[in-house]
Amino acid sequence: MARYAYVNGRYVDHREASVHIEDRGYQLADGVYEVVGVRDGKLIDEGPHIDRLDRSLRELRIAWPVSRQALGFIMRELMRRNRLRDGLVYMQVTRGVARRDHAFPTKPVKPALVLTTKNSKRADADPGPGIAVKSHPDIRWQRCDIKTVALLPNVLAKQAAREQGAKEAWFVDAEGFVTEGSSSNAWIVTREGSVVTRPAEFGILRGITRTVVLEVIADHGLKLEERPFTMEEAYAAREAFVTSATQFVMPVVRIDGRPVGNGAPGLIASALRRDYHAHAEIG
Amino acid sequence: MARYAYVNGRYVDHREASVHIEDRGYQLADGVYEVVGVRDGKLIDEGPHIDRLDRSLRELRIAWPVSRQALGFIMRELMRRNRLRDGLVYMQVTRGVARRDHAFPTKPVKPALVLTTKNSKRADADPGPGIAVKSHPDIRWQRCDIKTVALLPNVLAKQAAREQGAKEAWFVDAEGFVTEGSSSNAWIVTREGSVVTRPAEFGILRGITRTVVLEVIADHGLKLEERPFTMEEAYAAREAFVTSATQFVMPVVRIDGRPVGNGAPGLIASALRRDYHAHAEIG
Repeated sequence: MARYAYVNGRYVDHREASVHIEDRGYQLADGVYEVVGVRDGKLIDEGPHIDRLDRSLRELRIAWPVSRQALGFIMRELMRRNRLRDGLVYMQVTRGVARRDHAFPTKPVKPALVLTTKNSKRADADPGPGIAVKSHPDIRWQRCDIKTVALLPNVLAKQAAREQGAKEAWFVDAEGFVTEGSSSNAWIVTREGSVVTRPAEFGILRGITRTVVLEVIADHGLKLEERPFTMEEAYAAREAFVTSATQFVMPVVRIDGRPVGNGAPGLIASALRRDYHAHAEIG
Repeated sequence: MARYAYVNGRYVDHREASVHIEDRGYQLADGVYEVVGVRDGKLIDEGPHIDRLDRSLRELRIAWPVSRQALGFIMRELMRRNRLRDGLVYMQVTRGVARRDHAFPTKPVKPALVLTTKNSKRADADPGPGIAVKSHPDIRWQRCDIKTVALLPNVLAKQAAREQGAKEAWFVDAEGFVTEGSSSNAWIVTREGSVVTRPAEFGILRGITRTVVLEVIADHGLKLEERPFTMEEAYAAREAFVTSATQFVMPVVRIDGRPVGNGAPGLIASALRRDYHAHAEIG
């Protein structure tokens, strides 16, 4: 367990780290977050993550709680205090503390900033046995392009997947197309060898890892189709995988209980995983 | 400002009242809430509110944090400490504190319980000048029948309404029908004198005040149509109003900048407001 958390200007004992009960994040889910991977003591793709945080804040008209430069310092100082080598930095910004009212506070309030870290084993090029995913109706709101803490629908989908022996849920929209995972982007490789993933518009989050993987795909000269795909296409796919800041590229070997391809991690997914770190910004 | 809040077993100074940063309400909007009106020092419709809290908890599979009887005691003790005569009691239950992960914690955690109170002027039978409402696309998730703290879409809709001089937002679904307000239920009275409100299914919250007002309507022998209505019907309505635990029955006098009827609070809305308290459970 990490020893320190950063809460509104102070590095505090993680066990004692707290926010006011009228922080709008707690009462109204009025906030955004980012998760940045850490490898060998370095942040992965810090720039793009902080750019996306900036976009999320602008979409909700929440001011920056500290300068961008200060945030970079805080991340590194927290990593140092927690002796973080491999794992992640989590950061959350909410609109701040105000008497409960749906509308924005009429008096200016200071946005709240909270950071934590989490240690994990250094990710291997070898993906291991891969993961199973389970489909789930996408009943979320229509602005999933904003990375907000209003994650309850994702919580329920992930839990449903877990209870059915799967590691991740794939959301399926009303037209039968896969949108994204509950905490990852979704990909397949067709029998013809095309890599397929949904365009990043209002329906899904523009994953930072997703963007890097698109570069790796281009670098390998692989055929890419950025278009929605159905569950039927996923069942018939040669390979499938998910991407996220903490899993990088993770092969999917079962979908709704059916084996994908021969039921083992696919060649393309494994190659993309292996070459991911050469393309990510490390610093 | 109320002096005390109740937080996980203790009555604490409201200014110091806090929850852990890894309370799942803060990071994942994994919690539910209720607002109970208070009049002359008595709770309004406590029974139905606590029944609805029980339903919300069951839908999310969150255990009761204390017994129902204990919750009744806590509400009254907090009212007593805060000398609350008129206003509201707010209560929030989250799944509890656990290391961040979308899925439910695998080890049992104790749900978190937070209560606050808010004083307000005793509501008059006279509704005053009524309120303006503004329409807003309903882009929320599809389980708005559960009263969760994942309220960000409601926050954004209410704020958009306020910036256009309106007090409330009315959500309009993809088919053009009004679903509900951002923190109230929506009603119109047609030119023919029928009271119209949307049936309470998965699209909207089953308002406690809404249920009591249905009884008042039946008691007055008014014609009721429980069906969806469009914005065009609302523009052409003789009257319109909203219901909620804190506003009771509040006439709507402008919709999207157009006057409703003659632009003054309607007779039926005013009568329902006047007779509301005779039908509510007070105790």
